[in-house]
Order: sequence, then structure tokens, then C-alpha cells
Amino acid sequence: MLETKIDTGKTAVLVIDMQNDLIKVPEEPFNAVTKMAQSKNMIANTARVISEARRLGMPVIYAGHIHRKDNADMKPTITDMMLQGLTPPAREAMVEGTSGAQVVDEIKPQPGDHVIWKRRSNAFYCTDLELMLRARGIDTVIIVGAVTNGCVANTIRGARERDLNVIVLSDCIATMNPADDEYFIKQVFPREGRVRTSDEIVSVLQNS
Amino acid sequence: MLETKIDTGKTAVLVIDMQNDLIKVPEEPFNAVTKMAQSKNMIANTARVISEARRLGMPVIYAGHIHRKDNADMKPTITDMMLQGLTPPAREAMVEGTSGAQVVDEIKPQPGDHVIWKRRSNAFYCTDLELMLRARGIDTVIIVGAVTNGCVANTIRGARERDLNVIVLSDCIATMNPADDEYFIKQVFPREGRVRTSDEIVSVLQNS
Amino acid sequence: MLETKIDTGKTAVLVIDMQNDLIKVPEEPFNAVTKMAQSKNMIANTARVISEARRLGMPVIYAGHIHRKDNADMKPTITDMMLQGLTPPAREAMVEGTSGAQVVDEIKPQPGDHVIWKRRSNAFYCTDLELMLRARGIDTVIIVGAVTNGCVANTIRGARERDLNVIVLSDCIATMNPADDEYFIKQVFPREGRVRTSDEIVSVLQNS
Amino acid sequence: MLETKIDTGKTAVLVIDMQNDLIKVPEEPFNAVTKMAQSKNMIANTARVISEARRLGMPVIYAGHIHRKDNADMKPTITDMMLQGLTPPAREAMVEGTSGAQVVDEIKPQPGDHVIWKRRSNAFYCTDLELMLRARGIDTVIIVGAVTNGCVANTIRGARERDLNVIVLSDCIATMNPADDEYFIKQVFPREGRVRTSDEIVSVLQNS
Repeated sequence: MLETKIDTGKTAVLVIDMQNDLIKVPEEPFNAVTKMAQSKNMIANTARVISEARRLGMPVIYAGHIHRKDNADMKPTITDMMLQGLTPPAREAMVEGTSGAQVVDEIKPQPGDHVIWKRRSNAFYCTDLELMLRARGIDTVIIVGAVTNGCVANTIRGARERDLNVIVLSDCIATMNPADDEYFIKQVFPREGRVRTSDEIVSVLQNS
Repeated sequence: MLETKIDTGKTAVLVIDMQNDLIKVPEEPFNAVTKMAQSKNMIANTARVISEARRLGMPVIYAGHIHRKDNADMKPTITDMMLQGLTPPAREAMVEGTSGAQVVDEIKPQPGDHVIWKRRSNAFYCTDLELMLRARGIDTVIIVGAVTNGCVANTIRGARERDLNVIVLSDCIATMNPADDEYFIKQVFPREGRVRTSDEIVSVLQNS
Repeated sequence: MLETKIDTGKTAVLVIDMQNDLIKVPEEPFNAVTKMAQSKNMIANTARVISEARRLGMPVIYAGHIHRKDNADMKPTITDMMLQGLTPPAREAMVEGTSGAQVVDEIKPQPGDHVIWKRRSNAFYCTDLELMLRARGIDTVIIVGAVTNGCVANTIRGARERDLNVIVLSDCIATMNPADDEYFIKQVFPREGRVRTSDEIVSVLQNS
Repeated sequence: MLETKIDTGKTAVLVIDMQNDLIKVPEEPFNAVTKMAQSKNMIANTARVISEARRLGMPVIYAGHIHRKDNADMKPTITDMMLQGLTPPAREAMVEGTSGAQVVDEIKPQPGDHVIWKRRSNAFYCTDLELMLRARGIDTVIIVGAVTNGCVANTIRGARERDLNVIVLSDCIATMNPADDEYFIKQVFPREGRVRTSDEIVSVLQNS
């Protein structure tokens, strides 16, 4: 098995977009991520990792995706998906200040955690994530959340260009389509960092 | 008199650090900015500018300075002021989530305004200010707030490197020391943008 | 067929990492990208797009990847590929100032083009690309170069978070592995922008 | 006297805009900075600091200001100085690729130095300065160059928001107007870092 050494004094957990409007959506066709999250037991896995991290005093940082109700912070660009009419039907979701935009109850931010609200995919873009990691001397981020091939992948790339080590937990990430989840876990992330399971990380943290 | 043309569709008002812990401080020696704000009638002047801007549908954006109670987002650097023992005695202020960190009541953010919490001086650094201005097509910012030679000056420089036009309102900014306020208003800001009074801007906006 | 409207006054061509040490490598096992580039006729395709763009006065911007000979600008992070010993054997390539780091002769930068030297994957990270596009009023980038799932994909994401429209040319990009090239062209880029061929773009530009 | 401890393994010298078109301008009225540089013996002072830094293996980083001959990288904003007709008459200077844009001969970059070309005032804005300092583990920058209240002051603020310690050398900086030079040296920089002379720093480095 590949090594997973962690310096807990220099490592933070980064929880991406674990919000009600993405991870607890009951209705078709908007619940694809929710279903993959359920099938992976993603919330419970993430909760265990966070709990161990807290026990060790490691920073837990949440990034949540939001947009304004009036969409004034958005500027849609042209994509083939849009031109082909394949973008999902619009629904109001992730609106700043609503309960849908809140982090799911099971892994709610605690006093002392840092919460970032972001308006683009990469959690480093136009947020204070870099500043916060640098001020704390963090050089490694354990990344969990959604979606695998969207905000998770983009944030991993944001971390890498800033020379941070990345550990991404394969059973704590989810997306719409299993083939995309698998491709990123097998073909993309091993080139960008270490891919581990929540069990592996919990075990490492318990022995720290 | 110098011109003050404003395209209200491309201009936003940017209100910097108008927070209780800075603008409404009763006790010596921490109240220097508060006293200058009072002597300039700064809050009332700002309120009139904001009111006209709102009437015209111009975006009003607030940037507020905060830090964590545990200071984990700060990394003090060495300065001569510090080495000389001239930094003001520490007091807990601008702490994230406290009432002291809130914008003063008279010009409180309204629903639909955008509020930025920043951890460094320049309101563009590690915040979504740039993103928000760009998405709305803003090319000019009317800047008010505190302190003249600190966050106001730094944010003006942040605006300029992003090619934004700056209009700064001399009776809507304040700092500790009148000589610094005057130096920046007379010697620095005229090279960086337009310096106007609240009366001048209110008059331009009323005729828009 | 999907539309490909282009406002030539607001569109730039962005040529990524078309350097000798990547696109003209003779020796195994370092020539995988070179071979895909040859099989796609990538240099000639790119040359035709650039030529039409120049004719119309569109900006042509080159981003080239470099690092220092002493590696002082690099800070390797831990990846599973590295732990598994699967990273390619080290060779000196893309070294700042060497001929290997130059853009291939057929599409050499001309006087008036803009050339960016970057040290990380995303051409927007720590470069003046954003500044240059903004100063020129560019809202759309036609992206070509290498490698598909590396610097090309990362730069596309950099463009998108800055609200730029992306057009990526499938026969003007290349990478090591055909399966990765295909996955990004079919599964990733259509969600992020428009995927077109050099023929399609040349035809649009000829009719502009 | 105030302390000037320097960890030479974590400190770089940053040389700003020491270019022929600014520091070696013979003709009135464009030679104000050149005259102050001469009266301070700025080039020779800087040369001694650089020489000691090189001897100790400290990184020497040059930032030079440039713009394109066609000005396509510039987007002038409105200032009162401009409205009052007080901006200096236009002259072609600091044009990318010209000898006027080169660093003055006495302190020319040597092989192994890092050279940054910037298009805005702050040497951190849209350049790889941050990346380079971070990859090398630098936490302190010794800043010299021109002009005191322009690119020097803006780069100091860029350094501070990135939590870097700043040491600025009062006899190695210059600007147009002695009153501005003095104001920044006495009133601004002591709040932002340590102000020292070249003699003081050379002495510290000689004893390192």
C-alpha cells in the first residue's frame, strides 16, 4: 500500500460544497449527486474524518458554493452543452442566505471552523482560502466534497498551483455520473496528489 | 471645477470599514478615527451618497475588516513602529461575528447589497470584489470609508491595477491623524483618481 | 451543427506550450505528445488558425511553460504516481532561455504578439494573461496547444472562472494518451465551452 | 538603534524599476527621479547591497516596468492630475524590448537572478513574484528601487498583504519630489516594515 504520512500540524481538512441543495436533494432529476453521496455513505465517512481532525486540532475549512438570488454575480458563458440543450432545467439552488445553501446538518461547521462562500468552481478563486492556509502554515489539504469532476477537481488544481500537497478521499466525493467519478479518481487525481479512503485517513489520524 | 461625469450603469459605491469598532469608538486612545469621522460628518455624508446611489439602482458594496478571535488568520510582520513600541495597546476589535465588526447602523447594508469580509487592508485581496464588479460590468468605483491612508488607499491602488476608475470622497473618509488625511487627499489621490466631496457627487447623481 | 459566432474584435487566440521540448521531441519515451501532435497534424492546423487570426488583427497570445535550470521555482508535491514510481524518468526540458523552451518554428511569435512564460500549469496563474485580455476588451479565447488534460484543461478552467468564453480546437490539442485526449474532448470541454475543429474556425474567420 | 536581524536563508533582495528610462534620464523635465537617484548615490548603494547578497547566496530579484509599444496593455483611468493637465508630457519610455527598459548597467541581472517584467505598479500584480518567493521559502524582502511613492510603496503593500516582512532602504529609493520621498520614508514605511540604510544592511550582511 502507498504511504500516507500526515503532519497534522500542517494539514487542514477542506470540505467542498457539502450543501443541502446538492447533497440532500430529494427530487428527480436534480438528485444525481445526492444519490451517489448516499451510495458511497459519503456524509458519514466525511463526518468521521472531520471528527478525527477536530480531535487533533487540525483546521476544518468549509467552502460553500453560492450565488445571488438576482444572479448579478454570474456571467454565463457559451458551452456546447448549453447549445445542445443538455444543461439541466433551471432551478433555484445554492442561493446566498437560504437554508439550501447551508452545509448539511451532520457535518455542520463548528465555532472556530473557517467557512468560505465562493461564487466560482475553484475554492481558491476570489476567496480567502489561500490567506487562511498560509497564515496557519498549512502545506497539505485533505479534500472531500462535491462534485468530483467540478469544484473538487478545480480546487485540487488550485491547491497544486500553490504548491500544496493534496489528499483526496475517494469515498467522500461524489458527482452526477459514476463514469466521471471513476475517471477522475483513477486517471486524474493520482497524478495530482494522493487518493485515499476515509478509513485509511481515519486510521492514520488515530495513530497520530 | 473639474468634471465628474458618472455613467451610473457602470459605477458602484464601495464602502470600506465603516464598522462600529472603528467609526463609533467612545474611549481614548482608540477613538481617533471616530473623532475625525464626527468632525467631518462622515456618516451622514456617506448616507446621502448611498441613498442617491440606491435610488439610481447603482450597486452598493460594503467591505468590512475582520479577524478571527483566535488570530489564526493573522501573521504579524516586523515594523519599526512595533520595534519602537509605538503600536497602540492591543484591544479586541473587528472580531468576526461580533457587533463591533458590524457596519454602523446609519448606513447598514440593505437586502441586495453585497457585503465583503476582508482580512487584509486592500479590499480586493483574497475577496470576491473583483469578480462582483466584473460580473456587473462596473468600470468606476466611488470609494468612501476608513482609514484614508490604510484600507482606503490600498483599495484605491487595488482598483487602479485592475484598470478601474476611482472617485474618492474627501468628506467621507477619515483616519487617525489630520496630516495624513490631508497628504493623501492632496498629494496622493489626485494622481490615482478623482477627489470629490459628497455634495458634488450627490449633485451629479441627482442630475443623472 | 452547433453555432460558432465569433466577435473578432473581442476574441484572442491563446497558444499553450507549443514548445520544442514538448511538440518536437524525437526520442522515446518522451515523445508521446509529439507523436499525437503529428498524427493530428496539429502544428499545421494551428498555423492556419493563427494566420487567419493575424489577418483579422486578432491578438495572438503565446503561453510557454518554463522552469529554472536550478529548479528553484519548483516545489514538488507528493502524488500517487510518484509514490508508484510511474512518473517518467527525469530529463532536462523546458528550461528558461534554452532552445528547447522556444515555440516551434512553424508558428513562432511575430512582433506584436504577446508571449507569456508560465511556471505552473494554468496560464492565468501568476502571469499577466488576465491583465492583457482585459486591457484589450477580450471576452472569448480560442485555445490550442498542449497537453489536453494538463495545461490546456487548467487554462480553460482559469478562463471560465474569469467569465471568458472558451473555444477549444480538438485537432490543435494533444497529450500523451489518446484515451485522455478523447475523454476531455468529449466529456469535459463541451461543459466548459465550445469544441470545434481548425477547419470550422478557419471557415468562420474567413467569413468574418 | 532598532534591530535588523536577517535570516539570509529566507530573505531576498527585490530591485524595482532600476531601468535606464527612469534612473538614467538626461533630459529635463523627465529626469527628476534620475537627479534624486544621483544625489542619494542610489545606484552605488544598491550595488553594494546586491553584492553582499550575492556573496551570501541570497536571491536577487529584479522587477522592471514595461509596456507595449502599441499601448495595448494599458487602459488609462481618469485622474484629477490628468483633468488638470498636470500629467507630464508623453514620451516613449519603458517600452518592452528596448534598451531604455533594461536595468542600468551597474547592477545588471546576473545569470541565476530572476527578472520579472510587470505592467502595473505593484510587482506582485499579475507576475510570478509570489510564486518565486514561496517556492524558495522567502519570508522577508529587502526592497530598493523607484519610485518611492509609486511602485516601491505599492510593492511594499503587496508584500504585506502576503505576510512578508519588508525592509526598505532609504538611500536606495528615489522619486520625483523630495517631500514625497520624505513623507513615505518617515510616515508610511515605518508602519509597514523596517526602514534602514544601505550601510546598515551591508554591515548586517557582512556579519552574517
